[in-house]
Amino acid sequence: MTRSLGFGLLLMITCPLVLAGQGVPAADSLAQAASAASAANTVAINFVWTLVAGFLVMFMQAGFAMVETGFTRAKNAAHTITMNFMVYGIAMLAYWAVGFALQAGGVGALGTLGGYDKLAHEVSLTIGGKTWGLFGGTGFFLTGVAYTAPVFAYFLFQMVFMDTAATIPTGALAERWKFSAFAVFSVLVGALIYPIYANWTWGGGWLAMLGKNLGLGHGHVDFAGSSVVHMTGGVMAFVSAALLGPRRGKYNADGTVNAIPGHNIPMALIGTFILAFGWFGCNVGSTLAGSDLRIGVIATNTMLAGAAGSITAMLYMWLKYDKPDPSMMANGALAGLVAITAPCAFVTAPSAVLIGGVAGVLVCAAVFFIDGKLHIDDPVGAISVHGVNGLWGILALGLLADGTYGDGWNGVNGAVRGLFYGDPGQLAAQAIGGLANVVGVGVMALAAYKVTALVVGGHRVAPEVEELGLDLPEMGALAYPDTPEVASAVILSETASVTRGGVGQLEPEAV
Amino acid sequence: MTRSLGFGLLLMITCPLVLAGQGVPAADSLAQAASAASAANTVAINFVWTLVAGFLVMFMQAGFAMVETGFTRAKNAAHTITMNFMVYGIAMLAYWAVGFALQAGGVGALGTLGGYDKLAHEVSLTIGGKTWGLFGGTGFFLTGVAYTAPVFAYFLFQMVFMDTAATIPTGALAERWKFSAFAVFSVLVGALIYPIYANWTWGGGWLAMLGKNLGLGHGHVDFAGSSVVHMTGGVMAFVSAALLGPRRGKYNADGTVNAIPGHNIPMALIGTFILAFGWFGCNVGSTLAGSDLRIGVIATNTMLAGAAGSITAMLYMWLKYDKPDPSMMANGALAGLVAITAPCAFVTAPSAVLIGGVAGVLVCAAVFFIDGKLHIDDPVGAISVHGVNGLWGILALGLLADGTYGDGWNGVNGAVRGLFYGDPGQLAAQAIGGLANVVGVGVMALAAYKVTALVVGGHRVAPEVEELGLDLPEMGALAYPDTPEVASAVILSETASVTRGGVGQLEPEAV
Amino acid sequence: MTRSLGFGLLLMITCPLVLAGQGVPAADSLAQAASAASAANTVAINFVWTLVAGFLVMFMQAGFAMVETGFTRAKNAAHTITMNFMVYGIAMLAYWAVGFALQAGGVGALGTLGGYDKLAHEVSLTIGGKTWGLFGGTGFFLTGVAYTAPVFAYFLFQMVFMDTAATIPTGALAERWKFSAFAVFSVLVGALIYPIYANWTWGGGWLAMLGKNLGLGHGHVDFAGSSVVHMTGGVMAFVSAALLGPRRGKYNADGTVNAIPGHNIPMALIGTFILAFGWFGCNVGSTLAGSDLRIGVIATNTMLAGAAGSITAMLYMWLKYDKPDPSMMANGALAGLVAITAPCAFVTAPSAVLIGGVAGVLVCAAVFFIDGKLHIDDPVGAISVHGVNGLWGILALGLLADGTYGDGWNGVNGAVRGLFYGDPGQLAAQAIGGLANVVGVGVMALAAYKVTALVVGGHRVAPEVEELGLDLPEMGALAYPDTPEVASAVILSETASVTRGGVGQLEPEAV
Repeated sequence: MTRSLGFGLLLMITCPLVLAGQGVPAADSLAQAASAASAANTVAINFVWTLVAGFLVMFMQAGFAMVETGFTRAKNAAHTITMNFMVYGIAMLAYWAVGFALQAGGVGALGTLGGYDKLAHEVSLTIGGKTWGLFGGTGFFLTGVAYTAPVFAYFLFQMVFMDTAATIPTGALAERWKFSAFAVFSVLVGALIYPIYANWTWGGGWLAMLGKNLGLGHGHVDFAGSSVVHMTGGVMAFVSAALLGPRRGKYNADGTVNAIPGHNIPMALIGTFILAFGWFGCNVGSTLAGSDLRIGVIATNTMLAGAAGSITAMLYMWLKYDKPDPSMMANGALAGLVAITAPCAFVTAPSAVLIGGVAGVLVCAAVFFIDGKLHIDDPVGAISVHGVNGLWGILALGLLADGTYGDGWNGVNGAVRGLFYGDPGQLAAQAIGGLANVVGVGVMALAAYKVTALVVGGHRVAPEVEELGLDLPEMGALAYPDTPEVASAVILSETASVTRGGVGQLEPEAV
Repeated sequence: MTRSLGFGLLLMITCPLVLAGQGVPAADSLAQAASAASAANTVAINFVWTLVAGFLVMFMQAGFAMVETGFTRAKNAAHTITMNFMVYGIAMLAYWAVGFALQAGGVGALGTLGGYDKLAHEVSLTIGGKTWGLFGGTGFFLTGVAYTAPVFAYFLFQMVFMDTAATIPTGALAERWKFSAFAVFSVLVGALIYPIYANWTWGGGWLAMLGKNLGLGHGHVDFAGSSVVHMTGGVMAFVSAALLGPRRGKYNADGTVNAIPGHNIPMALIGTFILAFGWFGCNVGSTLAGSDLRIGVIATNTMLAGAAGSITAMLYMWLKYDKPDPSMMANGALAGLVAITAPCAFVTAPSAVLIGGVAGVLVCAAVFFIDGKLHIDDPVGAISVHGVNGLWGILALGLLADGTYGDGWNGVNGAVRGLFYGDPGQLAAQAIGGLANVVGVGVMALAAYKVTALVVGGHRVAPEVEELGLDLPEMGALAYPDTPEVASAVILSETASVTRGGVGQLEPEAV
Repeated sequence: MTRSLGFGLLLMITCPLVLAGQGVPAADSLAQAASAASAANTVAINFVWTLVAGFLVMFMQAGFAMVETGFTRAKNAAHTITMNFMVYGIAMLAYWAVGFALQAGGVGALGTLGGYDKLAHEVSLTIGGKTWGLFGGTGFFLTGVAYTAPVFAYFLFQMVFMDTAATIPTGALAERWKFSAFAVFSVLVGALIYPIYANWTWGGGWLAMLGKNLGLGHGHVDFAGSSVVHMTGGVMAFVSAALLGPRRGKYNADGTVNAIPGHNIPMALIGTFILAFGWFGCNVGSTLAGSDLRIGVIATNTMLAGAAGSITAMLYMWLKYDKPDPSMMANGALAGLVAITAPCAFVTAPSAVLIGGVAGVLVCAAVFFIDGKLHIDDPVGAISVHGVNGLWGILALGLLADGTYGDGWNGVNGAVRGLFYGDPGQLAAQAIGGLANVVGVGVMALAAYKVTALVVGGHRVAPEVEELGLDLPEMGALAYPDTPEVASAVILSETASVTRGGVGQLEPEAV
């Protein structure tokens, strides 16, 4: 911002020249300076790329907030949107304090961002001479490691992924979850549940070592989070939605199902566009390198799969129920994006379309199965979108990775290949990663749910609060105070005692 | 995401060193390695730039969706937003399958992105020894060309431009267009209409060759799409809106006009901001090179023209009708952005303000002329914003290009100059490009409209559907189910037979 | 967009080779070419970074529009959103014509963007041999300076900051401010008020020279605008809101306060997410250099402070008023972001959390003090968010800057250190900067308010207009015409004479 900012930069470039100039001929020192300057530029390109991509992933929080709020009722809109808003900050600080150290303590040198000094794997098991990492333990509160820019850039990028996973359960538990329970549960997600599974796959942990240790392909490979982010979110959503139970009036005694349409379809569809926009960041940024030109392939595969998912979901609904349902188109696009997240860097464009197209059908079928057969009430379809299609995404990589990318991944030589390209071991590693997510995340989510219940005295709001809408009782504010009849109309007079009074700014105006 | 990602990068940089090192002195090989590393960095910078810009252009889809939905009625909001949502995926897959090959088969080497091997001009005419390209034919389904990152990055950037054009007609035809007709028409836009005109101008086709072949300036020059994207969208909108006819109740028997205000002005204005944000990507990204520092000029000219358009539209309405109309301010901003899209890289800042300022007046005049005189019903003003101001944009380049940029454009030496800077031939090439758009796109749009009518049995919904609102009959969902009185209130009971039943998730709740 | 674009780039890189090649040995000239290519790449990286960051800051306008409109009533929503929409263009053109020359005429060479030829400090005072810059005077209308890309890129980045400040008062004065008064006042903000204070701090003016001239640390340091942008906006909001007076019905005769809740909480919270997204651009872009790897630290500190602010505000309200208020969580997040804006590059991660956490409490206390005690009516809390926390931000830098960054800042050697790290002089410079803002901006805002009143005949709408809602009388359009009962219901018939008629497109439809 001021004229002196250029100096630091100049120094960085000329400094290697000075060092190199001691005792070597002029041409050599000039060439070495040019090499050093180029290397510094490459790191800068990768910083720019990783950070911009991270900002886009952060913006996905707005997309989730709009999708989930649009798909719920007006009387709960303030509650739903506030969960989506606060999960960002609550889970972030938990991750900063504890989670990042557990997840990334085990990450070694990151060449693309200029390198860490150290982040070692503190907790591991050794079985038969093979070491299996469980989690790290360095970098709590972003202290205790060298205060270097690469650590911070890497932290930011990992944090926004964690927050994507953390916001998924808020959709499945919407319209009946106590805000206090949400807050405590989100702390546990950011501090423990997400980081541990992420360590196994992205922190050099035991799933990543399945290749090196057992010869199963490159170990569990998940480019940008089909399992680490989306299955984790989906499994947490499944476990906690099953425990929390359905919304009042959702299922009838005779087993039939009542529809509860969301209050704002345009909001949900705009939110889906924001998610698709942010998804570019998620997938292309996972190179951690703008200098890895594979980013062109990744970005195009990402958008093709989302498109295919929206179209097959549209056709499925149109053919089966006679209308091209807007909600399921949105969920179809998201399902395609979830599914391509793991394989985006490893497959051809036609494969990307295939993966997305299957996802669009899968999400419709899953929604009807989970809602209609299992009677697990998931207002926004989070389990089907993120859980089911996260699993499909990692398996799709195990089937369709085409052997043109990934040399050296998880320390295994050669490119990543799926079953159809000759490596059944890769598919096995993918399946093991999926199973580990269902079991590992499932058990941790169950424990976190129980602990939360103890801390805040149960997860569920009172029946009369659910009936009237959660906005005033839980949040002290209506979403749409100028149209109280669409929200908790009668609440305004009937529940005067539920809400606080005395402070002008916060008291609902007599309308 | 893992430690091994850096290796690919390292290889890319050091590989030239190995090649260069055979038999040359050490200093030379070091210098050559440094040169190669720098060249690789430049390509990476251009990839980062082109992809980030492409993501911003993709996000314009959300802006269009909000502007168009905000400017239509609540009873059609689910239908309008869903057209805007699905045009992204439908037209994308058509472009992937067919359109890209037609458009870009004729593009040669793209130095800024590291180069294609081949993409030749398959179909052309030779007249008097001069060759005029018509369209390409390589790269259907992104196969058949080398599976290289530059092709993918270029595809992404071109695709999002196509989708911008494809979404424009959905505004002009809103509130009365059958969803099935929309879907089929959009396939034809993505596969044929857009790619062919884009080939003529951006694929080295006959409009691009007007300079080299006939000496008309640099041929038809359109930096970022005033004609290729916006006129194409506007002409398609004009033709199809004229054929589809006005909304019921829009024009009275005595020739007077009824206003039909949009249901959500804040939504439309936020959408305009999103468009202005994404427009940066559209204009600056069209360098395909972050290493072309002209991007600074382009970005500033873009925002100045948009500002000027919003202000002159505001003043026009304020002076003429006594109120500073919000809708026309938004359209004025968009008109300024459309008009600067072609000349943004070629003009001074004062010229950018002039171009945008004229656009703001032009859009108001055009809206009143098309609505009040021609009685063509365009709910969102798409024809005036994109068609009229797209034409103004390419002509403005022909008048005001200042001779400081564009050396070598379309194979013609020297910078691009408009009439006021000494080159009347450039203005002629611009006018020919505009005429070719009106005629070429117009005829193709007419044909596509007729073909679509045959495929789906007509374009227009039944009168009673239009009266009640398209949301339930066409989409099976209300936009705002918690406030049915603003949507298709009575529909809920009256058209029970129109909507499907049986599936809980999809059946509108009894409110 | 065309094949020839690569040529300009090639020229740029090889040109130094040609110059260097005269009379030097081959290896040397190759090395020099590589060096020149690397230097060009570094400039390109910084252009890319600065422009992308600038686009993100521009997008904050959409966030402000949503926050302010969501926090006001439906009957004034078209008026509020239109002020937020038009301030972008109006203030931009004023800044282009006049403001940029006043602010940045005094900026010297900007190495990170490749350098200006000249932009000198035209107006200054010399006291006792020391020179104190007051404002510049070169570059009106972006003419009169060399037409170079760095100037344009720098202009864009500075302009979007100015517009951020200019939009802040529209929130504090909402629901009662004449649109004409808003328009004239905004011209004065963009042309004069903002640029002059910005020159003092960022243009090498007298506040920047406090270090060099008086030995007070590095002079007034504000990395990304806690004082320059946010205090400036907050002080303007304070002065003009105090002069304009409260909304009708806000304060009772007995001194008690009535709450006037905003009409759309989800809109406000989504807007907050957009602001948090854009804030990354604001803070990281202020390096003007993607090659300054400190951007990793800056981005992470930014998001941590925002998270901490939202959490402490939530806890404050929850503990004190028994509900976790959504509006104050949003304001807490914004307060944390405002506060970290000055110190983001200079502090540790734990300090960032501390700074944001304090901000979250401060904003709650300030809202209740300003509303409940001072009886200054600020519908969106702009004074508390931007003014109070802008001051806290610059003081926090003076306390917590840790001495690891900022060598050479404002021409002072050594890194920036706060009081707790050994430099009380820095805190003094920060306090002087804050005082100068309160006095300087305060006086200019007062003068601008009075001048505006003379030009347009007063600032305040008539009482009956305020009662009915400003949308139809001021803007000629309702925000939500399909739900007139939530807007100015009765206005439709009662104020027929207030609104214009005759033009179909603009006349409210009989509903």
